[in-house]
Amino acid sequence: MADMDSKHIVIIGGVAGGASAAARARRHSETARITVIERGPDVSFANCGLPYHIGGEISDRDELALQTPDSLRQLLNLEVLTLTEATAIDPNARSVTLRSLSDGTESSIGYDQLILSPGASPLRPPIPGIDNERILTLRNLEDMDRIMSAMPETRKVGIVGGGFIGLEMAEQLAHLGKEVVLVELQPQVLPQLDAEMVRPLQRELRHHGVELILGDGINGFARSDSGVVAQLGSGRSVECDLVILSIGVRPESDLARAAGIELGPRGHITVDSFQRTSAPDVYAVGDVCESPDPLVGGHVGIALGGPANRQGRTAADHIFLGDRALPYPGSIGTSIVRVFGLEAGVTGASEKRLSAAGIRYKAVTVNGPSHASYFPGAETITLKLLWSPEDGRILGGEAVGRDGVDKRLDVLATAIRGRLTIDDLVHLELAYAPPFGSAKDVINTAGFAATNIRDGFLVPVQTLEEAKGHVIVDVRPAAAAAALPVPDSVNIPLPSLRSRLGEIDKSKPVYTVCQMGKTSYFAARILANHGYDARSILGGAHHQAPRPND
Amino acid sequence: MADMDSKHIVIIGGVAGGASAAARARRHSETARITVIERGPDVSFANCGLPYHIGGEISDRDELALQTPDSLRQLLNLEVLTLTEATAIDPNARSVTLRSLSDGTESSIGYDQLILSPGASPLRPPIPGIDNERILTLRNLEDMDRIMSAMPETRKVGIVGGGFIGLEMAEQLAHLGKEVVLVELQPQVLPQLDAEMVRPLQRELRHHGVELILGDGINGFARSDSGVVAQLGSGRSVECDLVILSIGVRPESDLARAAGIELGPRGHITVDSFQRTSAPDVYAVGDVCESPDPLVGGHVGIALGGPANRQGRTAADHIFLGDRALPYPGSIGTSIVRVFGLEAGVTGASEKRLSAAGIRYKAVTVNGPSHASYFPGAETITLKLLWSPEDGRILGGEAVGRDGVDKRLDVLATAIRGRLTIDDLVHLELAYAPPFGSAKDVINTAGFAATNIRDGFLVPVQTLEEAKGHVIVDVRPAAAAAALPVPDSVNIPLPSLRSRLGEIDKSKPVYTVCQMGKTSYFAARILANHGYDARSILGGAHHQAPRPND
Ligand SMILES: Cc1cc2nc3c(=O)[nH]c(=O)nc-3n(C[C@H](O)[C@H](O)[C@H](O)COP(=O)(O)OP(=O)(O)OC[C@H]3O[C@@H](n4cnc5c(N)ncnc54)[C@H](O)[C@@H]3O)c2cc1C
Ligand SMILES: Cc1cc2nc3c(=O)[nH]c(=O)nc-3n(C[C@H](O)[C@H](O)[C@H](O)COP(=O)(O)OP(=O)(O)OC[C@H]3O[C@@H](n4cnc5c(N)ncnc54)[C@H](O)[C@@H]3O)c2cc1C
Ligand SMILES: CC(C)(COP(=O)(O)OP(=O)(O)OC[C@H]1O[C@@H](n2cnc3c(N)ncnc32)[C@H](O)[C@@H]1OP(=O)(O)O)[C@@H](O)C(=O)NCCC(=O)NCCS
Ligand SMILES: CC(C)(COP(=O)(O)OP(=O)(O)OC[C@H]1O[C@@H](n2cnc3c(N)ncnc32)[C@H](O)[C@@H]1OP(=O)(O)O)[C@@H](O)C(=O)NCCC(=O)NCCS
Repeated sequence: MADMDSKHIVIIGGVAGGASAAARARRHSETARITVIERGPDVSFANCGLPYHIGGEISDRDELALQTPDSLRQLLNLEVLTLTEATAIDPNARSVTLRSLSDGTESSIGYDQLILSPGASPLRPPIPGIDNERILTLRNLEDMDRIMSAMPETRKVGIVGGGFIGLEMAEQLAHLGKEVVLVELQPQVLPQLDAEMVRPLQRELRHHGVELILGDGINGFARSDSGVVAQLGSGRSVECDLVILSIGVRPESDLARAAGIELGPRGHITVDSFQRTSAPDVYAVGDVCESPDPLVGGHVGIALGGPANRQGRTAADHIFLGDRALPYPGSIGTSIVRVFGLEAGVTGASEKRLSAAGIRYKAVTVNGPSHASYFPGAETITLKLLWSPEDGRILGGEAVGRDGVDKRLDVLATAIRGRLTIDDLVHLELAYAPPFGSAKDVINTAGFAATNIRDGFLVPVQTLEEAKGHVIVDVRPAAAAAALPVPDSVNIPLPSLRSRLGEIDKSKPVYTVCQMGKTSYFAARILANHGYDARSILGGAHHQAPRPND
Repeated sequence: MADMDSKHIVIIGGVAGGASAAARARRHSETARITVIERGPDVSFANCGLPYHIGGEISDRDELALQTPDSLRQLLNLEVLTLTEATAIDPNARSVTLRSLSDGTESSIGYDQLILSPGASPLRPPIPGIDNERILTLRNLEDMDRIMSAMPETRKVGIVGGGFIGLEMAEQLAHLGKEVVLVELQPQVLPQLDAEMVRPLQRELRHHGVELILGDGINGFARSDSGVVAQLGSGRSVECDLVILSIGVRPESDLARAAGIELGPRGHITVDSFQRTSAPDVYAVGDVCESPDPLVGGHVGIALGGPANRQGRTAADHIFLGDRALPYPGSIGTSIVRVFGLEAGVTGASEKRLSAAGIRYKAVTVNGPSHASYFPGAETITLKLLWSPEDGRILGGEAVGRDGVDKRLDVLATAIRGRLTIDDLVHLELAYAPPFGSAKDVINTAGFAATNIRDGFLVPVQTLEEAKGHVIVDVRPAAAAAALPVPDSVNIPLPSLRSRLGEIDKSKPVYTVCQMGKTSYFAARILANHGYDARSILGGAHHQAPRPND
């Protein structure tokens, strides 16, 4: 199997997608020349770990360097040019222009295949006062060092943007004892998830002292004696010692654009399922690209580490194997975040995204324990499932809870990849022993509830709002109903329901509610089987009732 | 939606399958008469929690009673006859003969539909000395109470049988400070898994002071002054204060057999995918039945809580919905156990089972971290994957490690249910943030390695045994190679491999080995691309090297 291949592969960007492509390429060939061009001083570092070193949870900075330029040279026999920026691509001449950031010299390098993995840079909108050394972003080790060296004189931090990175930073900075205020333009944190699913996160943040300002944007910044003042759209202003901007990223596609390579509407490089761009022998991978969207059609750019790594591998495969390579099946956007004691995430499409795409869907939200409820440490997981009314195919899932959220997301991600349906979820046979799961896992429960909706056994009520003005029967024990009240409900605990049917008007729809959404379903079944138009409020008070810190 | 149904459903067995069937049936109809016959004093208890109450981890006995006869009556309007044994079934007369265990009276009860969920009873082989009040089994709350009341005068416990329950009991009794010796006829614990996968469990048990006697059976028991002496096949004898027999279960199918209902070769009641037996309107669910085997064909009896619950639900559905009910798709045997700090389990078919069934398969074993290796607390998971060489379909998976085993089993269980292939595993997009996963999860790695085997990039060596007598190159750093040595290997650390190729004979196959199976693969790729016949030892020294406590 000796290979006589002496092609030259040039890769722009030496981190997730780029280094992965280089590594896989080298495993295909010992003779290919492989050159990695990296603007920064580092390659192969763990971007995703940066917030955790700032917060001290990853104590050793060296842990973040998965490989160094030297180790890449040695292990993979690569040419690694750090502190070197690619400034132009010429797809006709098959060459890239380079500029050394240490001495400013320009040079050019030829390629047989070019892989673009330049990533995406944090958005820094051109608003008044943005040029301020106390307004920082976080993408690489240097950014991290900058934030860390500002910590000693920082008491209060403003985080702008409540996405994954913003929440991780809020958590880590609170761990460090900083006063944290988080500003988010949307009326919710984690806009990737549906609003009702992140309410527990918002409570958790507030509970840990993070001030949340939702539905308010930044108009500009001013300098104050001690720091920076963020001026909000609402007119409000927030003074802090440091601002961290985490309002999203912008694909670094300027080079590609200048070279005439096709871009999508949001500036991503459009690729096919072998990561090929519109230019021959030019591939793009990672945050810079948008690839075919398996969920809603068209193309989608998803800025995540796993996709970047596997897209890099796909590009390398295609260079050596051609169309025999395994195509990249598209990203479904599985993501997760830990926020203090809570875990929350999404896989596939959210309700918001399906609505925006005009795709028909059905939704259910259920609660279930992270493992057997009778075994110590069980925590409630709230799981939202979206599926297609046409064929029952699972379109997306979201989950939040204190334990086991990652597992449920991974099961749903696998189900989405495998085009499983709600019927399949009913009978997933998941690992069950008391420390690990339940005889009926919350995933099965979601399948039960979804098929019950399809089959007419569960008439779902998505929000308390919907129930407003109707007869609401709270079937919890009186004490539970009092502890977390559902406004305007009458309390008839389930065990007495059959004997108290006379108290409920049969001529009107009845909305049942309980703590978790299970007992209210049981009650609704009883009522329906006695001739009532009975509907069950999904997720119960645990999910729906208004609470302090909301 | 009022229902006018007044059928009478009789259910034999009031725990996992039976109570679930009753509950679902009641949700279908308020007017059906539903009678549950239970021999014991309890219904709806958490069998799976019994070992953990014995060990004190579940402190409150009441936690184990998910429902009581009274609460079932009240919530589900059931007739619940406890301490009542069904002694005969007459499918022609549609009646069941009952005997009260409190007063011995006999009666009979008619049914429209009968659901059998009598479960399976612990095996108690008729060997000499078996009739000894110090030889106990564990199935229900009474058994548990019996074991617990023997604890004060018990110092040493012999556990016979190293399956899931035996291991749980070993762990819990060791927690209580008992001296534990575990005897297993097979040369390994957890015979449901392949032998090499349970070696870490065996080490863990021994590390925690559990004495393992493997590959040795019980010939009989004798009484000694202080307790009971187990006489082993090897001639050895073991004296203890108490013996717990956990050598498997026997379906309680005598009633069905006597009624002429069709049984399988191991005494299970054979059912179709609606849980129907050979007798009209008689269903069987749970441990007593064998249902169509989705993995190797024919029928299979799988004694697990999840299947029992969902089969019970399926039977109830079929009674009310007929063939519109969702069929039970068959059990794949997903199971898991915690043994001190380790977690281990299986889903789908093991290598053993595939071999026995004459089904062609391919296998790979990989290691990967439970979450990002740079984030604190990452633990190594060893994952074995089995797939079909015909179409790449996943047939089974096994995993062992200190964290995250349940998640990987659940992903594989979902993949098996969805008929996913090794190609699909490559691109599963699992939830990744540093506390939860890796950009390339060990599940992806299993997909990479499996497809690499198929595509000829990885020439796998399943065991060190296979490598014996061949050139073995250990590519770990010298210190690592010395710390956990691989016998008869030469050490050439990966970074120096390319420059030291001259030391390796090109005319012979080269077997590479490392710690985890990754670097050896990298080395084998280098060698192969330089013209060597290179093979990589799967799972590395972590998985393969001989160790103390083995
Ligand atoms: C703080 C933070 C936390 C994150 N957390 C997670 C997480 O928990 N989970 C998750 O899945 N993802 C996470 N991500 C996202 C993940 O890191 C990215 O999706 C991934 O790194 C993208 O890989 P890439 O190769 O496309 O780009 P990058 O990894 O960003 O690499 C691109 C490299 O290209 C270089 N470059 C750009 N232009 C040029 C040029 N013209 N010449 C030379 N070099 C150039 C850049 O300097 C950069 O180093 C996180 C990202 C950040 C910043
Ligand atoms: C100690 C232990 C730990 C376990 N751990 C796990 C685990 O971690 N994970 C897992 O998935 N599974 C586990 N199981 C297995 C799980 O409990 C069973 O698979 C499940 O309970 C089977 O349900 P079933 O309804 O078929 O039988 P059962 O739950 O056993 O119920 C059958 C009932 O029928 C009654 N009965 C039998 N014959 C008659 C008759 N003639 N008349 C009246 N009543 C009758 C019996 O008294 C019994 O109560 C465990 C089992 C035990 C014993
Ligand atoms: C460090 C880096 C260069 C490694 O790239 P890599 O070598 O492709 O990736 P890994 O170290 O995970 O190894 C994966 C390879 O080892 C193989 N492998 C891993 N474990 C194995 C095992 N136990 N047995 C056999 N093969 C194994 C895989 O099959 C794969 O090889 P393949 O692609 O040829 O199939 C690259 O991932 C990187 O730069 N990462 C840092 C940046 C980043 O990912 N950021 C975003 C997340 S923080
Ligand atoms: C206790 C027992 C009677 C409960 O049976 P059950 O009511 O069918 O089961 P659950 O309490 O899990 O509830 C499941 C039902 O609630 C519904 N449900 C659960 N959570 C819900 C939620 N949040 N929203 C809507 N519906 C929900 C499910 O859809 C399902 O109803 P369906 O079958 O009509 O679709 C039975 O499981 C039992 O006896 N268990 C003990 C024995 C045992 O299982 N042993 C082995 C394991 S230890």
